[in-house]
Amino acid sequence: MFTLIKEDSSTKARRGVLKTFHGEIQTPFFMPVGTNATVKTLGSEDLVGMGSEIVLSNTYHLFIRPGMEVIEQAGGLHAFMNWKGPILTDSGGYQVFSLAKMRKINDEGVQFQSHVDGTMRDFTPESVIAIEGILGSDIMMPLDECAPYPCDFKQAQTALKRTTSWAKRSREFFLRNEQQRTRQLLFGIVQGATYEDLRKQSAAEILEIGFDGYAIGGVSVGEPVDLMFKTLDWVIPELPKDFPRYFMGIGMPEQIVRAVGCGVDMFDTCIPTRYGRNGTAFTSYGRLTIRNAQYSLDQSPLDKNCDCFACQNYTRSYIRHLVKASEILGLRLLSYHNVYFYVNVMKKIRLAIEQGVFAEFQKKFLSDYEQENK
Amino acid sequence: MFTLIKEDSSTKARRGVLKTFHGEIQTPFFMPVGTNATVKTLGSEDLVGMGSEIVLSNTYHLFIRPGMEVIEQAGGLHAFMNWKGPILTDSGGYQVFSLAKMRKINDEGVQFQSHVDGTMRDFTPESVIAIEGILGSDIMMPLDECAPYPCDFKQAQTALKRTTSWAKRSREFFLRNEQQRTRQLLFGIVQGATYEDLRKQSAAEILEIGFDGYAIGGVSVGEPVDLMFKTLDWVIPELPKDFPRYFMGIGMPEQIVRAVGCGVDMFDTCIPTRYGRNGTAFTSYGRLTIRNAQYSLDQSPLDKNCDCFACQNYTRSYIRHLVKASEILGLRLLSYHNVYFYVNVMKKIRLAIEQGVFAEFQKKFLSDYEQENK
Repeated sequence: MFTLIKEDSSTKARRGVLKTFHGEIQTPFFMPVGTNATVKTLGSEDLVGMGSEIVLSNTYHLFIRPGMEVIEQAGGLHAFMNWKGPILTDSGGYQVFSLAKMRKINDEGVQFQSHVDGTMRDFTPESVIAIEGILGSDIMMPLDECAPYPCDFKQAQTALKRTTSWAKRSREFFLRNEQQRTRQLLFGIVQGATYEDLRKQSAAEILEIGFDGYAIGGVSVGEPVDLMFKTLDWVIPELPKDFPRYFMGIGMPEQIVRAVGCGVDMFDTCIPTRYGRNGTAFTSYGRLTIRNAQYSLDQSPLDKNCDCFACQNYTRSYIRHLVKASEILGLRLLSYHNVYFYVNVMKKIRLAIEQGVFAEFQKKFLSDYEQENK
Repeated sequence: MFTLIKEDSSTKARRGVLKTFHGEIQTPFFMPVGTNATVKTLGSEDLVGMGSEIVLSNTYHLFIRPGMEVIEQAGGLHAFMNWKGPILTDSGGYQVFSLAKMRKINDEGVQFQSHVDGTMRDFTPESVIAIEGILGSDIMMPLDECAPYPCDFKQAQTALKRTTSWAKRSREFFLRNEQQRTRQLLFGIVQGATYEDLRKQSAAEILEIGFDGYAIGGVSVGEPVDLMFKTLDWVIPELPKDFPRYFMGIGMPEQIVRAVGCGVDMFDTCIPTRYGRNGTAFTSYGRLTIRNAQYSLDQSPLDKNCDCFACQNYTRSYIRHLVKASEILGLRLLSYHNVYFYVNVMKKIRLAIEQGVFAEFQKKFLSDYEQENK
């Protein structure tokens, strides 16, 4: 399922291939986030065009809207959104905690109020796997309890205990369904908040259950960046080498480049599209705020080193005008460019690992990136 | 400049070719409206992909934002928006009357307050031609006074008189500039509101000045559809056969198909994109309101007879979900499909005229279209 091709000699970076029912994905990789079955402003043809090999979608959002009947009738999420490659679906656990208006959690599962129409809904570990079965995603995440930041030790411990129990139930339910077992992968999620011993305990418990890959969850929830990377220091050494590792919801380009060096294989974040819609472009020389007056007459592309269609065809001056005039095309060009930038950074990372020059790549990337278009 | 290839035997429909500095356009044609130098939600590559041969943009809007310095620095509107084909720019006259917060009009020109930042600006017939020279559009419209509906005879007469005087000044200014004269075309606009004698008087005066094509303006301003078509009955017989005829701001698909039969060659309207953003698709069986519950599980494309990329790749069920979830991709797919629908109807019209079956095409199109997806 996962093949390690090469390990970097001077960092913990790895190069591998992850096999799924809808095709292989070269690791390390980035997953554009398609919350509502679309990566915001982009169609599936855009993702194919930019060479993205996988897309992530949100179980919570799809469950709420359009609802499972609509996706089941379409024949699953691949057909619904016209995406032929692999899909990873998260469990909805994070959204229940961050989006739902009201929630009641107990050992059985979680009751919550839809943020769209206020109806009461519920998730159990079993129902989430069943929902992800209907979605037909290639990689499923099980229901977990994501502790907030900050979070006291006792609360973190309770969330961890529940996460382990739910992980076990998810795995058992998954194994009972032959179609799911043969077509879908199920990953485990390591929780434990910002406590080293809880993180190590969680890793041990999740590993004992046994999954197709291992995710580090409950990160990027407001904690300082250094603490986020501490979690990697604690957990990565506990994880087996021959399984993919997923750092959930991370992050800024410089954080991804750093985390690859810590041994992470998989990333997702809505940053490229969210920042794009706010008028920020990611470039090889750092972030660029397109509304700034200095770009008013600038005939250069967003990033002179980028060969995406936005950079090949449109100037900063034009995109700035579009954004200032609230034209949707401006948001689309920035979103496309930013997702392309992320996908392309991963391509460069993979090449650097293959060529045994990842450490140099990392240093050069960070040094260029820190210039912030000065 | 304009070559008439064929005249229909049973209607007044015509088939021709209009030559411009940026290429030939087959008539009759539809011009997608790119108000702010973008056809809303679409890039120039989308317009190329759907086979649109020309795009329209608005002088008023571009003059206000981003302003002429920005477009001049880019080397004109073609380079600014990355569109290599012909562009028609309207004069801004209509927008001054419909959008500007305040306006003072006299025989010299018009003063108005920008709807964006409240600054006072002005247009004269000469300044508008100079602005369109900087834009570098292939077809320029001169400043005119667009009478409202309803409008009493005296007011219509004043507007007509001013329109003629401004047309003369526009033409004289245009002829003095060699670069404009050799690269750009200037059309005349027939005004006269809903009065037959004023329309005929305006046509005579505009024809006497002499332009590269003739437009019927001051229509689609709120008057009943029958009165709009009456204007065609009055004006078209006054216009010479060997010049293109442009029915400004028209209209719904069925109106365009009807107007081609009255001898019109050129159309523009923001209806396809505006309706698209409101969730309405134009199809060969009439309009379709994608939010309707009946499309919730509908696995068919927006229009089963359409081969646009939205119809080839996405279902009504999916697009309905996108629109209900306020996803930009939904607006983009509907806008793309609708503009494609308009461009494609014109292709079918041209083919029908070539084959001498336009009357039959018109009958069949209107009969199918009136089904309104029942």
